[in-house]
Amino acid sequence: MPVISHRGAQMPPSPIRKLVPFAEAAKKRGTKVFHLNIGQPDIETPHSILQAVKDADIKVLEYSHSAGFESYRKKLVEYYKRNNIEINHNQVIVTTGGSEAIAFAIQSCMDPGDEIIIPEPFYANYNGFAVSAEVRVVPIPSTIEENFALPPIEAFEKAITPRTKAIMICNPNNPTGYLYSKEELEVLREICLKHDLFLFSDEAYREFCYDGRKHISALTLEGLEENVILMDTISKRYSACGGRIGAFVTKNQQVLDAAMKFAQARLSPPSFAQILGEAAVDLPADYFDEVHAEYNSRRDLLVKRLQAMEGVTCPMPGGAFYAMAKLPVENSDKFCQWLLEEFSHNGATVMMAPGSGFYASTGKGNNEVRLAYVLNLEDINAAMDCLEAALKAYKN
Amino acid sequence: MPVISHRGAQMPPSPIRKLVPFAEAAKKRGTKVFHLNIGQPDIETPHSILQAVKDADIKVLEYSHSAGFESYRKKLVEYYKRNNIEINHNQVIVTTGGSEAIAFAIQSCMDPGDEIIIPEPFYANYNGFAVSAEVRVVPIPSTIEENFALPPIEAFEKAITPRTKAIMICNPNNPTGYLYSKEELEVLREICLKHDLFLFSDEAYREFCYDGRKHISALTLEGLEENVILMDTISKRYSACGGRIGAFVTKNQQVLDAAMKFAQARLSPPSFAQILGEAAVDLPADYFDEVHAEYNSRRDLLVKRLQAMEGVTCPMPGGAFYAMAKLPVENSDKFCQWLLEEFSHNGATVMMAPGSGFYASTGKGNNEVRLAYVLNLEDINAAMDCLEAALKAYKN
Repeated sequence: MPVISHRGAQMPPSPIRKLVPFAEAAKKRGTKVFHLNIGQPDIETPHSILQAVKDADIKVLEYSHSAGFESYRKKLVEYYKRNNIEINHNQVIVTTGGSEAIAFAIQSCMDPGDEIIIPEPFYANYNGFAVSAEVRVVPIPSTIEENFALPPIEAFEKAITPRTKAIMICNPNNPTGYLYSKEELEVLREICLKHDLFLFSDEAYREFCYDGRKHISALTLEGLEENVILMDTISKRYSACGGRIGAFVTKNQQVLDAAMKFAQARLSPPSFAQILGEAAVDLPADYFDEVHAEYNSRRDLLVKRLQAMEGVTCPMPGGAFYAMAKLPVENSDKFCQWLLEEFSHNGATVMMAPGSGFYASTGKGNNEVRLAYVLNLEDINAAMDCLEAALKAYKN
Repeated sequence: MPVISHRGAQMPPSPIRKLVPFAEAAKKRGTKVFHLNIGQPDIETPHSILQAVKDADIKVLEYSHSAGFESYRKKLVEYYKRNNIEINHNQVIVTTGGSEAIAFAIQSCMDPGDEIIIPEPFYANYNGFAVSAEVRVVPIPSTIEENFALPPIEAFEKAITPRTKAIMICNPNNPTGYLYSKEELEVLREICLKHDLFLFSDEAYREFCYDGRKHISALTLEGLEENVILMDTISKRYSACGGRIGAFVTKNQQVLDAAMKFAQARLSPPSFAQILGEAAVDLPADYFDEVHAEYNSRRDLLVKRLQAMEGVTCPMPGGAFYAMAKLPVENSDKFCQWLLEEFSHNGATVMMAPGSGFYASTGKGNNEVRLAYVLNLEDINAAMDCLEAALKAYKN
């Protein structure tokens, strides 16, 4: 019998999905499960953009251009301009979700054995794409005690080796919700220029910034035009996760040329959701105000409830729709499993993502969990009632 | 300035697309271009499956299961059963086009430096996925003189090294149109079992078999259950290239487990076109009869016309919708470019894919071209008029 690859064997299983069988068992027992474990928004996809797909007059569902429909890329130029990002449509490759933009960035810039520095905790799938490309992730710590701020420049300097090719950030951050400041981005600028590193910037949650703060794109950092690759997606912005449309954006022509060859090998991104994405650029300016206000209220409620629980630490996230919390438990993997296997409160329980899955360093995040506030206020309240009761019960 | 990866630099450009600028220039000059260069069918996508997408009542465009909607996978089980392939829905991972199925097969089974044997000429993008996974393609020759039949077992034996992990075939073949016989598949069975190799079988053109011959899936080869990975797509079958839906099918549980981790890292395949694919399984049984008859007539006309041209060799293809032809020219790259740059006949010219792009061995295929018969009979006739006139003009 032939054997699978080392890369297939080493590939990390999804930390979010490993509890799924326990959640399914809980539901079978009649327990309601509040899903705070995954970034699947409950907000409805705007009707008009779904309608654009229905209205499309398609005779032959053809391949699009490998970089995506030109009309969509030109629309994206408008979208980015509104967000103070000046690019032209040849600097955009429409990708199959943000996922493919991550894969293209790694493949275009990195070879097996090359190293990428990522502040941890980080989006778990970065690890998956690194393993699949045989690239080494070098984590540097951001900590809950410091609200998950960017590690100091010394931490980057210490981690850099001759094999370091890139730094990856997610801003605002998944899983921490941290929003990087202008000063923090300047630190990244400095270190990337000094060591000739690429900066891969995942800005999936650009619009999700709170407390009146503005998002600053890595693509606007002066002098860093040749270093930055922006990895983007419409998934969270328009509640369109299933469309699988993202974008790979860079001003570096060599990187664009390389990425286009990877794009041509896979032929084209999905046509239907490109139509949806194109329509989304024309959503009225106030579309996002309502969505933003809703997530803001959810964040405020979730964090207030968590901070009021004994022994729980939860920094106020500045963006995205996640919060990381430190719980008074030794092992959050076991606690999260116990919540699904043994616990219920008013006939319900809560599903969260154990923190360890977001760390590359062994032993870290063991008492942390990530919560996605993708439920309405009432459900968030009920979920927090469960968690509060569970923490009391678990102790005893 | 940071530098791109070796893999990005080595990545082969698409052989089909490099003539695109010349075709665009020809059109600007007012010359009609008959596109025989790319496997984009002109046949209309069945109305009912496009309608299924319009009829879907989507409130939130959610991620699907990473392996694809369970309902779709269960439908695919029916589809495969009708094609004598017995699998269950947990042995299918719905992929983003056939492209992603190829990538998953390589990544799940092969490590950097591992070797994959592929009879050449072969689908050019296999090379792209191999480079991106740092895997080495070892070509063995199938020749136009022998109608592109499977190379003899000795050719495989000679090519096998300790790093050989897999053999890849496309059946019916792109670019040659060759349909492998039961005897040829038995040769593959023998060699895979003897050397513990995976058999990656691309069966995108399963339904496109002519002259009353039946397609035999590699998944039906006895005793080879643990070795075979079937790579599939709905692109050609239902003229649905832009949907980007394919399938990765295997009975090998270890491979499935590994591939599922790659599937989870990229979250899910596109939702809209899964709806389309699910509806396609319920198309009436006679849907394909008409399509089949149309392609059959096109093949007969194209090959008859080619065979009637002086100095042209074109074996009759048994399947798919491609033919490879040897032309009385020294360099078909230059000839194909000349056709677009300098030639026209009755205000039209023809675009074909130069043969060299389908060979990994340098210097091979230089006088060959691939023609995709994806145009109606009238256009094929006109395109052949152009080619015939061009061959006469080019000589002088």
